Amino acid sequence: MTESDLPVVNLTPGRWGDPAHEVELPAAALEALKHLGVRRPPAPVEPAAPSAPDDVVVKLLVELLGSEQVKTDLETRWGHTRGYSTPDLLRHRAGDTTDMPAAVVYPGSHDEVQALLTTCSEHRVAVVPYAGGTSVVGGLAAQGTAFVAVDLRRLDRLVEIDEVSRTATIEAGVRGTAAEALLAERGYTLGHFPQSYEGASIGGYAATRSSGQSSAGYGRFDQMVVGLTLATPRGTIELGNAPMSAAGPDLRQLVLGSEGSLGIITSVVLRIRPRPAERSFEGWRFASFDQGLTAIRRLAQDGPLPTVLRLSDEAETAINLADPDVLGGGSGGVLAIVGFEGTRTSVRHAEVAEVLAAAGGESLGEGPGETWRQGRYRAPYLRDPLLDEGALVETLETAGFWSALPALKAGVTEAFVNELSGQGTPPIVLCHVSHVYETGASIYFTVISAQTDDPVAQWRQAKTAASQAIAAAGGTITHHHAVGTDHRDAYAAEIGPLAIETLQAVKRVLDPNGILSPGILIPPTP
Amino acid sequence: MTESDLPVVNLTPGRWGDPAHEVELPAAALEALKHLGVRRPPAPVEPAAPSAPDDVVVKLLVELLGSEQVKTDLETRWGHTRGYSTPDLLRHRAGDTTDMPAAVVYPGSHDEVQALLTTCSEHRVAVVPYAGGTSVVGGLAAQGTAFVAVDLRRLDRLVEIDEVSRTATIEAGVRGTAAEALLAERGYTLGHFPQSYEGASIGGYAATRSSGQSSAGYGRFDQMVVGLTLATPRGTIELGNAPMSAAGPDLRQLVLGSEGSLGIITSVVLRIRPRPAERSFEGWRFASFDQGLTAIRRLAQDGPLPTVLRLSDEAETAINLADPDVLGGGSGGVLAIVGFEGTRTSVRHAEVAEVLAAAGGESLGEGPGETWRQGRYRAPYLRDPLLDEGALVETLETAGFWSALPALKAGVTEAFVNELSGQGTPPIVLCHVSHVYETGASIYFTVISAQTDDPVAQWRQAKTAASQAIAAAGGTITHHHAVGTDHRDAYAAEIGPLAIETLQAVKRVLDPNGILSPGILIPPTP
Repeated sequence: MTESDLPVVNLTPGRWGDPAHEVELPAAALEALKHLGVRRPPAPVEPAAPSAPDDVVVKLLVELLGSEQVKTDLETRWGHTRGYSTPDLLRHRAGDTTDMPAAVVYPGSHDEVQALLTTCSEHRVAVVPYAGGTSVVGGLAAQGTAFVAVDLRRLDRLVEIDEVSRTATIEAGVRGTAAEALLAERGYTLGHFPQSYEGASIGGYAATRSSGQSSAGYGRFDQMVVGLTLATPRGTIELGNAPMSAAGPDLRQLVLGSEGSLGIITSVVLRIRPRPAERSFEGWRFASFDQGLTAIRRLAQDGPLPTVLRLSDEAETAINLADPDVLGGGSGGVLAIVGFEGTRTSVRHAEVAEVLAAAGGESLGEGPGETWRQGRYRAPYLRDPLLDEGALVETLETAGFWSALPALKAGVTEAFVNELSGQGTPPIVLCHVSHVYETGASIYFTVISAQTDDPVAQWRQAKTAASQAIAAAGGTITHHHAVGTDHRDAYAAEIGPLAIETLQAVKRVLDPNGILSPGILIPPTP
Repeated sequence: MTESDLPVVNLTPGRWGDPAHEVELPAAALEALKHLGVRRPPAPVEPAAPSAPDDVVVKLLVELLGSEQVKTDLETRWGHTRGYSTPDLLRHRAGDTTDMPAAVVYPGSHDEVQALLTTCSEHRVAVVPYAGGTSVVGGLAAQGTAFVAVDLRRLDRLVEIDEVSRTATIEAGVRGTAAEALLAERGYTLGHFPQSYEGASIGGYAATRSSGQSSAGYGRFDQMVVGLTLATPRGTIELGNAPMSAAGPDLRQLVLGSEGSLGIITSVVLRIRPRPAERSFEGWRFASFDQGLTAIRRLAQDGPLPTVLRLSDEAETAINLADPDVLGGGSGGVLAIVGFEGTRTSVRHAEVAEVLAAAGGESLGEGPGETWRQGRYRAPYLRDPLLDEGALVETLETAGFWSALPALKAGVTEAFVNELSGQGTPPIVLCHVSHVYETGASIYFTVISAQTDDPVAQWRQAKTAASQAIAAAGGTITHHHAVGTDHRDAYAAEIGPLAIETLQAVKRVLDPNGILSPGILIPPTP
């Protein structure tokens, strides 16, 4: 089975993924939770009665899109409330309806999105785009105001493939899985496989600068975008006459990562590649994380670069390996996953093996690689039963230059341990390198502890401490999860007040009435 | 001799490059010019008396920087008047002082640049940054207003090398040649070798999105920048905490290509690479430009990619080859240059050769490759004696997606031929592919004809026709020469009025009094 065979999953907030794929925790995990002091939390409750949508607004939307494409029933609205961060899931379980959209609309084309934004701007109706719904940073709820969720699932077309230029024009509502299936029919792939792959959409990838697990080989999503169409309250912007240009600033890079705050991306032109003829995934053991880090840096800087390159630290290696014998009879060390896709993979494989062995690595063969590949979308499924048991479990990621990574990793780990231990819930902190570049890499943390009585506040404090540690070590507040509302203050501090002013100025031009995703990414103008 | 051995050339406008390297036209070229109807133009004249600088402004600048760093003498001002487009050279020969700066200042640090901008903004004094002075798009003169040229040559430090992250922090005034020499001492290279290499600077590369002749292997300059510092009238912006980030739009890409209109870039953090252990350059013959285009597209899309990859069309191949036998006894066809630098070049070389041969190419060995390498910075030197003889000679470049390139090339060629023939000066039009990407490439034209009595107007009309052809074929108005004033209207049409409004809004935030490079890149707010 390959990525293009995976079905489209219509996610509903509250629990991740396809219900058929739900997992049970192994007995060993339940035992481990006891050691963390985990206790069963209160049972989930039904959503509280939400505020009613504004009749005038609903009438306006129905006139524009027709009554079938405007939903105000509780189930639809609750199904579009927040995304998949742990605080989102906890609030869902608590029946908290504060972030519920007043209505959900389903425009069917760029022109309908454009008309919707023009009209909503005239009538000062706030809108937030909703595609896959997989945000983990609070990117789906307008802050402090009633809003309409703009569900893009009807923008579901592969518009065009240019086989000479190897580009595909794809609408924003196409899910990652659907895009791969559509491209596979023609022999192509995007090669973009983030952990949210089963639910996330093309438009969301673009709006949040997503990065997939094969980014070493295929690049980040923002590197795949060569053109885009943006609907704004002031009209449509189309960008991308050439792969690269010296005609002024690259405004595509201003729209990518704008998270619905400057407009709604309705389609993108993406670089595509032929489907790989071969693929193989392999495990490698290193004596320590530091040794492994030097080895993968070697590949990132001098090549050749495999398609997938990941390195777990000691704690993650110990916890995540189903079979402890895989590292050679419990001798410790850390696990790297090295994957190859494409043609001539055996040649590159041999060159990579030479570099890794010279750096102290030991090949573990395809066993651990295949285990990782088959489980690559499973981690989010584990969180739900862990939350059921009363564990706090969440992830956090950052990136920095290679020389900054050791201090960045140590600082974030220490912040989590100190803050959560101080709250009486000492955590386990796992870490891996998830994406590599010539000049640096991203690191990804998983944190597990017992929940306190107020787990939302518990995590907020822990995340604040970790975010301060990221800033202190000179890292970026997010490498591939985006900003949303959760990272907004840290983001503003990272780029500084003058840079924030420039974004506010761009927003005032495109969204003069401030209807687009209020409070997401860009702090409101004072 | 390698790039790091080339001396820094202090260019003075009017004639390109190092006077010691001036060339004489071969007799065959002089003969060819006769066929174009070329006649000797009027002799160059001395510059007209320029307007005197404003005493109040000069006093202000002297208070800020000291009298030694403020120059108002005619020679210095004339030496900072315009750049190296053919219209610039023609106006220089005509003694036209309309674009002459009122004064030239030499700040010595970021803090001095920052103080200068703050003060100039308070007093409404227009400034235009000047580093290498190699603009070919009218990027060095404020339009319609007196201005001060800010010569950045004293920002000349290699500030820091981070050998773990493989980055170098380099000030904006460092010339390309100086940067290579400084990096070579530590065993590194940028690998950025544009044709302006002898004169251009790091700050100019960044501000104009320069692209070098080795871009297939080393990337464009904007892809080398991982961090930057920008001085603006409102204060300093520092960007780049990580190689890549999902924290909002990539604002580095808003500054890159801003051509001094949003601030003055005072330093950049650049990805560096080890100096290549090996290098080789080879010529390949293809039966036609179309066949060669398909062959190099194969490499750009499926790899492996050489470091240098260029393809001349039939006309350029015929004109530029010193030895007509090089293509196999005058059998026609087109020439591609394929260069390799780094390690394992022989392995990559063999793989590339296999691809090119399968696409119909025939290896010509290292002869034509070495000829190209040794002459890679010589073309601009040829223009001066051609102008001396009365020829009109200028270049123009664009980029587009692969599927658009044939129509783009045909459209631009036809526009030049029709327009210049219509003026009674039928041209020769040469073309080559200069930079390749997976989804497209840039094409670069050289146009030669006789001059009319008003060669500035002659070229303006020809370029307008060519620019319209670019727009009609969906290309970008510039791939690596930037916008300046010459491309401003075409640029505005390319990205559209709403996108232009966003740039104007950003400019208003950073430059509220509009003192930065007025009229360059961004059209004035109506």
